[in-house]
Parts: sequence; structure tokens; C-alpha cells
Amino acid sequence: MNQAAENPIGIFDSGLGGISVVRAVMDLLPHERLIYFGDTARVPYGSKSNETVRRFSRQIVNFLLDHDVKMVVVACNTASAIALDDLRGRWDLPILGVIEPGATAAVNKSPSQRVGVIGTTSTIHSGAYERALLARNPDLQIQSKECPLLVPLVEEGWPEDDVLNGVLTRYLSGFKQFPVESLILGCTHYPYLKDAIQRVVGADVNLIDSGEETARVVQEILAGKKLMHVPETHDGDRKHHFYVSDFPQRFQETAARFLGRPLENLFRVELEVLESYSVG
Amino acid sequence: MNQAAENPIGIFDSGLGGISVVRAVMDLLPHERLIYFGDTARVPYGSKSNETVRRFSRQIVNFLLDHDVKMVVVACNTASAIALDDLRGRWDLPILGVIEPGATAAVNKSPSQRVGVIGTTSTIHSGAYERALLARNPDLQIQSKECPLLVPLVEEGWPEDDVLNGVLTRYLSGFKQFPVESLILGCTHYPYLKDAIQRVVGADVNLIDSGEETARVVQEILAGKKLMHVPETHDGDRKHHFYVSDFPQRFQETAARFLGRPLENLFRVELEVLESYSVG
Repeated sequence: MNQAAENPIGIFDSGLGGISVVRAVMDLLPHERLIYFGDTARVPYGSKSNETVRRFSRQIVNFLLDHDVKMVVVACNTASAIALDDLRGRWDLPILGVIEPGATAAVNKSPSQRVGVIGTTSTIHSGAYERALLARNPDLQIQSKECPLLVPLVEEGWPEDDVLNGVLTRYLSGFKQFPVESLILGCTHYPYLKDAIQRVVGADVNLIDSGEETARVVQEILAGKKLMHVPETHDGDRKHHFYVSDFPQRFQETAARFLGRPLENLFRVELEVLESYSVG
Repeated sequence: MNQAAENPIGIFDSGLGGISVVRAVMDLLPHERLIYFGDTARVPYGSKSNETVRRFSRQIVNFLLDHDVKMVVVACNTASAIALDDLRGRWDLPILGVIEPGATAAVNKSPSQRVGVIGTTSTIHSGAYERALLARNPDLQIQSKECPLLVPLVEEGWPEDDVLNGVLTRYLSGFKQFPVESLILGCTHYPYLKDAIQRVVGADVNLIDSGEETARVVQEILAGKKLMHVPETHDGDRKHHFYVSDFPQRFQETAARFLGRPLENLFRVELEVLESYSVG
């Protein structure tokens, strides 16, 4: 473990959704170098057992540590819900998930204490956001809703049409009966639907983008530990690196759409290599 | 390998979609005993490399052989497209995929030689149906369309409403410009949308259910090899067995909806156990 300011930040997700967190960190901390790992060969994590998600997460953290990261961001709601405690118990470096920053922001932006959460089936069933929210304010009233179609809609790049609005209206109609002040976008894919979601729930609801909130906490942690990278004149190779465990169909196209530009320094890591990092 | 008539038929899929093939085989061959394996821990296969799909498929065939199956049905379009030749080269027992039966039926039901294929992104990009169709009739005109949202819609049990019709209309509009006689449902999830698809493409299009066609070929193969099970008075334990590599959220509910009744004799196989079957 090598916690020096010039070292990169490691960010991982079960697939490509975590790219929204990469984008938020790049926007807020443009001088930081990022190492991204997307476990595209084993996505989605939401349908796997807790034990399996923890094992996969440990492998990836080991892989990132091998690349000298100074901190780790778990940019995956499932892994944040299930594996974060296990990871923090095993390593000393700062390890941050996306759930706590999102929950903190929602509490701060909901004075009348009514918060909504949307996410994948596994995230909602895990109850992780509810626990994180109630730990911050036990008096909150929380309404959660699983929205399983939204990830495939985002991955496909479905346009904002009647279908998308129909899906959102169906999923979000419960928030008409139970009006919330803040709605946590509890999945890294959902920020790409922010405008459409805002139109359906109304302009007075604060949409909480867990990725943006996580980027803010990354900044706080690095500043607090004096690990923020200070750019120098001759900084050498400061390029981001992207690793995936498989190249699915349309990977480059989807990833570039998520990042807003083509991915640089993209590599594939064989599952066998990843498995060799198994010892936690 | 123990090819006796009383032995079960092995059927596998990357997940639960293959249950539609199980159902078709049960309907046509009610005296046969089935061993199903759904690789729910590693679903979907469509986003994995060819090498990985072949390795997973070999592991599962080994697992099924350990359960004395007399033949294997690859009830997964991706594995049928990518792993079938590899599997057939390694084992002597009959191994049948879902693509060839579907292609044969489409050719037989399309005298004017215009065939459509719908499937997941990976199935369509693999070109497997086009190859199988053209091998049967090089003069066919074929129109293919990937429909990535349909699997999540089926898995969620989305009702037949404006959203579903909007999705189908968007995906299937190309078949108005290019009218087909037969449309292959090239994904084991699609039979559950048969009625809705039929309404969108019109009553004069023959929908080819690969699962049903596969069940018919299973019957032919077993009859030809005198491997059809003949029921006897005291037949002992003839129960089907279902194995999965993980129990995802709502698994029982979804699987029972697919099968039309609760799954009996359901077991989970650890990935470590599955990996131990690696040597082909």
C-alpha cells in the first residue's frame, strides 16, 4: 500500500455504470489520475450471493492495490451495500462506497424528512439506503421503489420518448401519493436519465446523484489526508486507465456514451488473472 | 456416459430463459425426466467472450453427465451459437442447440423465402441464425433485429400495456418495410411475449418458437436412437431436478412464472464445484 498524493484513485463497478462516478470525479478533481475496473465478465452483481459479491470485490481491490491506488471508490451500489464492511476490515486505505454519500446528501436536502430511493431490485431489497438514511436521521419517512428496466434502457441508449416516459411514470407514480423532497438515484446508471426523471417527479424534488455526492466525499477524504494530487510542470504519465474483465458487444460505444468521450488506455484482464488475486 | 432410455435429459441455460424449453419438452415428452441447470451466478453469457462461454458450457455438460443424462439440450442461444461445435467434438452423446431446430422450422414455413430473426444483441451479432438459415437455403432473404429490452421486460413480468407495445413497435417496425413470412423468436425469453409480438407483426406471420421446435427434434433424436423413456408401472423416482449456480432476488417467483408452477427439487451448485468440472 502506497498512499502518496501522486498515486491514482481506484474506482470499480460490476460493469459500466460506475463510469458516471468516474465522470463526476474527473469533473470535480481534474488533476487526479484514475484506475477504473469494470467487471464486465461477471456483471450484474445484483443477482449474485453476498459471499460471491464479497469475493469478487476483494479480487478487484487487490488488483487496484497492485496498481498503487491511494484510495478505492466502490462505484457499484450492490458492492457498496454488501462488501464495503468486509473490504474496510481487510485494508487500511480509504475505501468509499456510493451509498453513504448519497444518504448524507438526501438527509441534508430534506428538511421535512421525506426521502425517496430508486434502484435496481437487488439494491432496494438489500435495504442498504434505508439503513444508511435511518442511521443519519431515525425520524425520516422513506419510500423505496425498484426500477429494473432502467439499466437496460440506459445501456441501450433508448431515446426520451413515450416508452421511456411510460416506464418512468409507472415506476415513479408512488411518489405522487407519497411526495418526497429528495429522491436518491440509487444506481450509477440513473444519472443519465436525470432530466426525464425530473420531468416525471416534478421540478421541486431534489434528485440526489450518488456519483456526484461520492466525488465530493472523495475530495474531502483526500484533502483531509493530504493525499490530493498537486499538479507539477513535469508530471509524466498522468493518464487514466480503464480495465474490464470482458469486452461485451458495443462496449466501446456504450462506454464512450457514458464517459462523454472515447475511453483511453483500455485493457482487458482475464478472469483467471483476477481469480489469482483471490487471497484477501 | 450412460445412454439408457430411463436416464434423464439434461437441459442448460445461462439463466432462467431455458425454462421455456423445459416447458416445451415437458409438454411434448411428459414421460421424460429432466435435469435443468441454470447458470444464474454467471448470467448473461451474451456479454462474455467466446472462450469463456465455451469453458462454462463444458463445465455444465460435465455436471450434467455426472447426473447420467442421455442427451444434452443447450437451451441458450448464446451457448448454442458459440459452444455447440466444441461440445459435440468432446462428447459422443446427442447434444442439441436451439438454433438449428428454429432455423429448420423457419425455412419450412417460408415458401416465399423471407425470414426475420429477433434476439439479444449477442445472438444477433453472432450471425448464428443467419448462418444456420443460409446453410438450409442460400436463397433466403433475412432481416435480423436485436431487441435488448425484451429479456428484462419478461423477467420483470411487465404487463401488456402501452409501454410493452411501444417497445415492440419500435423493435419490429423494420418488419413492416421488409415483410417476412416467418419470424424466429431467437431468445428463450421471447415465447412469453408471443401474443403481444403476434399482434404487432400481424396474424399472417409465422412465429417460430425455438423451444417448441427444439422439443420436437429432441423427440426425433430419442425415437431414432431408441432412447425414449417408456413408462412402467413401478418407475421409482421420476422427478425433475433443477440446479442453479445462484439464487437471485425473486428467483422462485420468476422461475415459477416461467414454468407455470413452482420448481420442484431445486438445488444450488457452488461455483467452486462447477469450476471443478473444468477439465473437458
